Amino acid sequence: MSTEAHRHNAIDRLVALLSKLPGVGKKSAGRMVYYILDADPSYARFLAEQLAALHGVIKRCSRCGSFTETDPCPLCSDPGRDPSVICVVERAQDVRVIEESREFRGRFHVLGGLIAPLEGIGPDKLSIGQLLVRVRQEGVREVILAMNPTVEGDTTALYLQKLLKGPDLIVTRLASGLPVGGDLEYADRLTLSRSFRGRVKVQEP
Amino acid sequence: MSTEAHRHNAIDRLVALLSKLPGVGKKSAGRMVYYILDADPSYARFLAEQLAALHGVIKRCSRCGSFTETDPCPLCSDPGRDPSVICVVERAQDVRVIEESREFRGRFHVLGGLIAPLEGIGPDKLSIGQLLVRVRQEGVREVILAMNPTVEGDTTALYLQKLLKGPDLIVTRLASGLPVGGDLEYADRLTLSRSFRGRVKVQEP
Repeated sequence: MSTEAHRHNAIDRLVALLSKLPGVGKKSAGRMVYYILDADPSYARFLAEQLAALHGVIKRCSRCGSFTETDPCPLCSDPGRDPSVICVVERAQDVRVIEESREFRGRFHVLGGLIAPLEGIGPDKLSIGQLLVRVRQEGVREVILAMNPTVEGDTTALYLQKLLKGPDLIVTRLASGLPVGGDLEYADRLTLSRSFRGRVKVQEP
Repeated sequence: MSTEAHRHNAIDRLVALLSKLPGVGKKSAGRMVYYILDADPSYARFLAEQLAALHGVIKRCSRCGSFTETDPCPLCSDPGRDPSVICVVERAQDVRVIEESREFRGRFHVLGGLIAPLEGIGPDKLSIGQLLVRVRQEGVREVILAMNPTVEGDTTALYLQKLLKGPDLIVTRLASGLPVGGDLEYADRLTLSRSFRGRVKVQEP
């Protein structure tokens, strides 16, 4: 009986909600709730406020599709970024990952998914039409396909590559191969095979 | 400039708050926020409501010190539990862990910490006086010391053991040794040494 009573209280409701988050199981959700209970109540209040406001404050950029507070987003409206190169990614969070690497200074385009016929996701479900319009209108010279190197990522990249093909446009794809600091011994067969096919000539120093 | 603008928005504020949670780094906090953005807005709303209500709804049980919505807590007021055995734990979340094992049907007592002289936590900071009162008043026959097998846990257990010593009271401590399913090869020296000192006679089947 007590165990039942224990199950349906505010702690358990919060544990159930938190364990829906990616990478969070019931145990870690429990640890989080007890951390929140032990912390100053202002922490829970700030967190609640930010969560309640999130969907109202953050929208999709009407140009590139990434999450933003202003439309167009800071990345699309920054004159310091090169508009002639567009990096195409699957999800809005990929923009963040690439931005943090500080490796790319062009514009982004978020597809909103990958082509996955088995899950009923065809090209029409992705923002591909919008990408074609941007390529035409924004004087784009290069499109970098930055999908994950998975079956769906490869399928989508191949589809876009055919669609974008033209005399004035370079279409590239992020290199795939051994991760830096990795070990041949632990590389899977497919990664190894890709790193062979994509091998590059050693440059003289 | 854009990277800076990117840093101070609602997403980053939520990432900063979430990455204070135990076991959550900046990367996993980012994944959480994008999950919340992709999910139905009702999810963020429910989560915000539960968080905002948490500290108001959950209090400490005035008897055992565990988190509860009612005082005394369901565990202290359940007549089906044996009041003559008290299991002493460090933190309120330990009550949950032990309850989920369904191994114990007595009462609990939460110390609220462990004796740690280097961090300035003496016995006076823990609910030890309250434990002594309960042992006297509630007809307790056995106190099970269920602190973690760490230096602080051992120190606290030793302290309580001396304090509780009496002719009518059994004081026990949870067994420490090899984890079930573990491997001798991976056991550290201290665990192995404990499992030797605490070895038990093999029972005839």
